[in-house]
Amino acid sequence: MAHIQLNDDNLPGIIGLMHYSPETAKPLNELAEVLLVSDNSLTRGERELIASSVSYWNDCHFCHTSHGAAAAALLEKPVSLIADIKNGLQQTDVSSKMRALLDIARQVQKGGRHVTTAHIDKAREAGATDKEMHDTVLIAAAFCMYNRYVDGLATWAPDTDEAFMHIGEMLAEKGYVAVTPAETE
Amino acid sequence: MAHIQLNDDNLPGIIGLMHYSPETAKPLNELAEVLLVSDNSLTRGERELIASSVSYWNDCHFCHTSHGAAAAALLEKPVSLIADIKNGLQQTDVSSKMRALLDIARQVQKGGRHVTTAHIDKAREAGATDKEMHDTVLIAAAFCMYNRYVDGLATWAPDTDEAFMHIGEMLAEKGYVAVTPAETE
Repeated sequence: MAHIQLNDDNLPGIIGLMHYSPETAKPLNELAEVLLVSDNSLTRGERELIASSVSYWNDCHFCHTSHGAAAAALLEKPVSLIADIKNGLQQTDVSSKMRALLDIARQVQKGGRHVTTAHIDKAREAGATDKEMHDTVLIAAAFCMYNRYVDGLATWAPDTDEAFMHIGEMLAEKGYVAVTPAETE
Repeated sequence: MAHIQLNDDNLPGIIGLMHYSPETAKPLNELAEVLLVSDNSLTRGERELIASSVSYWNDCHFCHTSHGAAAAALLEKPVSLIADIKNGLQQTDVSSKMRALLDIARQVQKGGRHVTTAHIDKAREAGATDKEMHDTVLIAAAFCMYNRYVDGLATWAPDTDEAFMHIGEMLAEKGYVAVTPAETE
């Protein structure tokens, strides 16, 4: 049971919180839309990999699994991608640029000051642009927020990876702003 | 020097990042406006104390000092409030409800799962409402994002607390959305 009384206890993770607080849901979903859906030289699947990995490092089951499922839908991978994200994507073909960006995201998850010029230089040598590094830092930072919001209020989430696959398909198809609850609800 | 080439190296902290990336600045400022400025049973000064405290725990000099300066402006306190935030507000008159909410914020800063029913019960016994606990968790979570964004890209900031007082006064007077750079800049 969540730490506070939500309007609908059947809605999992951040979805229940967004129905409880539509005025904060609006900018939270708009931020996710710009970071994860809008056109960008990183693919949508790559950006969901960053989101899911950071969420796993933050021990946030709901966000790790839902964004892992979104990555699976976008990259046309099976449900096993969600487990492979836990293992540092050992079984998944990922570019050296993406591995360097994931390393930056890992540092951001620990704390902003953990990102050093060595991490930045390595990503730049692997072909990452300034905008891609900016976006990676902000995606990782944003999930340090979403994860704490979801778990800090003790929301519930389904147990199995399979149960998240339809959430991933919905996010892949519709994005984030489309699921913002109306403020009048 | 920041890790990436910004459009204006003279703008400190998140201000330079918002000029670099106005499309993400928009939801970031709207979120800050809803959380820190919009009407709420917690005063604006109290909410800035939460923001500044979390930023200090995250070792983010720019955010700790600018939001501490905003709290000082709103609460009509001297510049020494910024240092007292580092010391857990020992010299500042803060309600027992606010101390319990700050304790929840401290747990959120460590990670969402650190918030227990004991922390929630203590805040509720001190008079905190569900909405106040929700907002405290999201303010703390949001500053875990802003702090990582500011420091993960190695932005610069003035050294002295005094140099931030005009930023605090501007935030107190104008809020956050008013300072969002136009996307066409």
